[in-house]
Amino acid sequence: MPETTTQSLISVSKNLHAGDLEMAGSALTPTCDTPWSVRMVRLHGGRQEGVDLVVIDNGRLTIRLCPTRGMGVIDVVSGDLRLGWDSPVKEIVHPAFMELGRRRGFGWLEGFNEFVVRCGLEQLGPPGEDSHHGAVGEPPVGDLTLHGKIANIPASEVEVEVLHEPPYTLTVRGVVNEFAMFGPKLELHTELSIQPGSTRFEITDTITNRGGQTQEMALLYHINQGRPLLEDGARLVADVANAQPRDAGYSEQAIAQYKHFGPPAPGTPEQVFYLDLSPDEAGRCAVGLYNAAKDRGLTVSWPKQQLPEFALWKALMDERDAYVTGLEPCVTLPNPRPVEREAGRLVSLEPEGSYEASLRFELQTGLPEH
Amino acid sequence: MPETTTQSLISVSKNLHAGDLEMAGSALTPTCDTPWSVRMVRLHGGRQEGVDLVVIDNGRLTIRLCPTRGMGVIDVVSGDLRLGWDSPVKEIVHPAFMELGRRRGFGWLEGFNEFVVRCGLEQLGPPGEDSHHGAVGEPPVGDLTLHGKIANIPASEVEVEVLHEPPYTLTVRGVVNEFAMFGPKLELHTELSIQPGSTRFEITDTITNRGGQTQEMALLYHINQGRPLLEDGARLVADVANAQPRDAGYSEQAIAQYKHFGPPAPGTPEQVFYLDLSPDEAGRCAVGLYNAAKDRGLTVSWPKQQLPEFALWKALMDERDAYVTGLEPCVTLPNPRPVEREAGRLVSLEPEGSYEASLRFELQTGLPEH
Amino acid sequence: MPETTTQSLISVSKNLHAGDLEMAGSALTPTCDTPWSVRMVRLHGGRQEGVDLVVIDNGRLTIRLCPTRGMGVIDVVSGDLRLGWDSPVKEIVHPAFMELGRRRGFGWLEGFNEFVVRCGLEQLGPPGEDSHHGAVGEPPVGDLTLHGKIANIPASEVEVEVLHEPPYTLTVRGVVNEFAMFGPKLELHTELSIQPGSTRFEITDTITNRGGQTQEMALLYHINQGRPLLEDGARLVADVANAQPRDAGYSEQAIAQYKHFGPPAPGTPEQVFYLDLSPDEAGRCAVGLYNAAKDRGLTVSWPKQQLPEFALWKALMDERDAYVTGLEPCVTLPNPRPVEREAGRLVSLEPEGSYEASLRFELQTGLPEH
Repeated sequence: MPETTTQSLISVSKNLHAGDLEMAGSALTPTCDTPWSVRMVRLHGGRQEGVDLVVIDNGRLTIRLCPTRGMGVIDVVSGDLRLGWDSPVKEIVHPAFMELGRRRGFGWLEGFNEFVVRCGLEQLGPPGEDSHHGAVGEPPVGDLTLHGKIANIPASEVEVEVLHEPPYTLTVRGVVNEFAMFGPKLELHTELSIQPGSTRFEITDTITNRGGQTQEMALLYHINQGRPLLEDGARLVADVANAQPRDAGYSEQAIAQYKHFGPPAPGTPEQVFYLDLSPDEAGRCAVGLYNAAKDRGLTVSWPKQQLPEFALWKALMDERDAYVTGLEPCVTLPNPRPVEREAGRLVSLEPEGSYEASLRFELQTGLPEH
Repeated sequence: MPETTTQSLISVSKNLHAGDLEMAGSALTPTCDTPWSVRMVRLHGGRQEGVDLVVIDNGRLTIRLCPTRGMGVIDVVSGDLRLGWDSPVKEIVHPAFMELGRRRGFGWLEGFNEFVVRCGLEQLGPPGEDSHHGAVGEPPVGDLTLHGKIANIPASEVEVEVLHEPPYTLTVRGVVNEFAMFGPKLELHTELSIQPGSTRFEITDTITNRGGQTQEMALLYHINQGRPLLEDGARLVADVANAQPRDAGYSEQAIAQYKHFGPPAPGTPEQVFYLDLSPDEAGRCAVGLYNAAKDRGLTVSWPKQQLPEFALWKALMDERDAYVTGLEPCVTLPNPRPVEREAGRLVSLEPEGSYEASLRFELQTGLPEH
Repeated sequence: MPETTTQSLISVSKNLHAGDLEMAGSALTPTCDTPWSVRMVRLHGGRQEGVDLVVIDNGRLTIRLCPTRGMGVIDVVSGDLRLGWDSPVKEIVHPAFMELGRRRGFGWLEGFNEFVVRCGLEQLGPPGEDSHHGAVGEPPVGDLTLHGKIANIPASEVEVEVLHEPPYTLTVRGVVNEFAMFGPKLELHTELSIQPGSTRFEITDTITNRGGQTQEMALLYHINQGRPLLEDGARLVADVANAQPRDAGYSEQAIAQYKHFGPPAPGTPEQVFYLDLSPDEAGRCAVGLYNAAKDRGLTVSWPKQQLPEFALWKALMDERDAYVTGLEPCVTLPNPRPVEREAGRLVSLEPEGSYEASLRFELQTGLPEH
């Protein structure tokens, strides 16, 4: 059996917050040539006062995970390449400062700046009313708020596991609970794992209904990228069987060129395309985002069975407003929840039923051959 | 004069938070045979990060009081008996994470897991609109939220008083302010007192209108019990003059058997009965909840003049959703506020006017004789 | 060049919270005869747990500034004179406990107790709906809340600057960001400066649109004074070209006597007057509030070009409800936002465009001569 070290960082069950802490490869994996570290850091100032970050440095990538914001990935840095984007939200906002119901349910936008942020779990998509009774004896969720709650719930349990022998895998696990009396009891168990020296990491999530009745579940990964990968001439690489604009009124050129990205254009309304991706023989879908020179890219892949839908978001605005694209593998499209229910895309989880989704992120130095 | 020691734990007036702290009988009451302690503990992780608990151990009972959540009682443990319940809300939620207006005003349910939680003080009952102007020149409360604010306001002053001579009474006092400009100025002063070795404790509350105009006040004690006292065959013991179902449509059997509790039944809608309790000769009402074997029970009693109304809440759902009953002595029934106003049950407090309510909790080893 | 010392107290960019800290004149300006200090203090208890104050003592005035509440001025004390008021909100409320959308958008009133509080910056005035689209591709602000957000956003950067040579000016700077994705990107840079021994201080604010589209901006300084300056017989001194009651229905006497203040009168509805102030030759407007004996007063002055409008608020209620007047120099009157837009009083800031406003506060020992 491989030996591992497990360090608890945050734990409700142990009533623990480990505070500022560093784990280092030199101490834990002396036989590993690649230096690595995992640190927990507390943030200060403005609306980020009290936010915790877990910073994973595997010798190639520095990944900033945020337990306080539902285990979202703030960004990933490798040399002069940064996965992530420059949101007008400059701080990593503590949920205590959030009021999701504000701005007619668009309050979520006051904290939105992650590279990877989960939307869900009870509901996602635009604000609105939904009087559907999901469970006997419970009030309906009622006033939906943009993209749901999970990104603004702090993790209840966070731990780091280190494998002492090759490949010395580093794993950060978290548990985030979206629970209410007379409401959802959805438990997110998430793992981010990476090996020292690698430019690839994986996120594996399991969502379990801990309630006693069938529960609707919605899940979308909002993976957001700005410069340097996004630029004039950047392109999406994906095997697309069908592409549909979400809204009417996009120009013919916009529709024809949906895989292509232009320069920032102040005042450009966002565009969203729903893509039907063709999986490979192993059943995996993949999308790549490449810079204009096609010498740098990011690919994200996942089993189509887990995340059958995909939305491409383009917000190519003035850079101060955000120049960003969103790659959004999902179970549920970001339509109003009643639309998704009607379409049968909301997952129904039986009591103790689970849903798993896993994503692989990989830096690329050139276009894939094929 | 009996000598006492008073220790301030939290104080706005002294700008004090005492941090983790323990007071012990061995030091403070060496002549007392029963060991006791009072501790303050800070919680960590998830939505309970930063919550303070006061833990009173009198040698028989361990009471967890929560200053951060309006001086509610989380639970009381005595050996294998626990007063309290297993809510789907697993953490003791910091009010900073609450948004009472969410879920169409049902946001309170995201933090509801106490053994004793106060509902009020400006309003209680279901969400809704209320355009009644309580005071000249002030806007109406407007959008009512479930069971009001008091359970999600942290205490401004918390202190422990220890009596140095028999019966060595331990008293924890708190002040919770529900104050707003152009709104209520309702001050809750609460005391929980217990003697070392006793299986009985008392809560005494005084609510004072610190404003300059007459103020409506609403008050209900939501006393919630799950296993082990609640079980199939458990029963309510109370001298009931009249019982009315809150809602139409309960079955005849449900109405006839309202004092009896069955097993968990997934998807069972909650039931609420309004009981007119007959007081004893001293003017006190009492309710008891006994397990099936009738060898263990909890009784709660209070002066009827203080808390003239009573609601019995049954939520006998799947245990994962909650298997719980609520014993709810109150001034104001949990109806929509306009209904209670019309019925004359909202208390009108004159400036500096006070309302007192006191409750006695006692563990029982058998049914009362009579 | 004069030499200065700059001390960072709170900083997102440096990930810094300096904690409890004191800077003293004896160490930093040994050649200055007037002892002074600047301290940072953390508050505890109730809804003020975790709030930071910066306390400036210049040897004559003690000014309490609150970084946690958008750099508002809590109060200013000079001997037995206090600039400020006794709000029914007794604590300095941490924004984490606020829910601006509560009470039909009047939630702001649960934290309102400052001497100087900014209203704005995206919007101010009463709650209501506003479906105006300020920017292409962004949702409208929608549900306006009373007086906007800026007073409930913690400062991202706070620093103190001390001039080492006469006049030994003390300056506290702060940056408060009201930023959202698909929303405003309004940066407030504020400076409060005072000299040791002086009874005068200045606040200079610069608001910059960091977004890429034109942005509406609203700004009002709510300067609130109770006793001892406000009392029966107190009066407003101001050169008023025109005065209009905000609402219909005030008595003729109330309108005629708008510059005069009577005693507290329980249950008096607030009154608001909109004043057109005549500037002096330098283009400055000034208002003074003097006690009945006219031997103590506060004057506030500003360039009319910066703050062309003025509202006088009178809430002469029972002292427990608030006995206070508000002097409110502003860009935008506290009318519903659509009214202000129609009237052309909302400022339109171009990208990187700035708006500056500066206010001088001065204690007076007698009425000005003229």
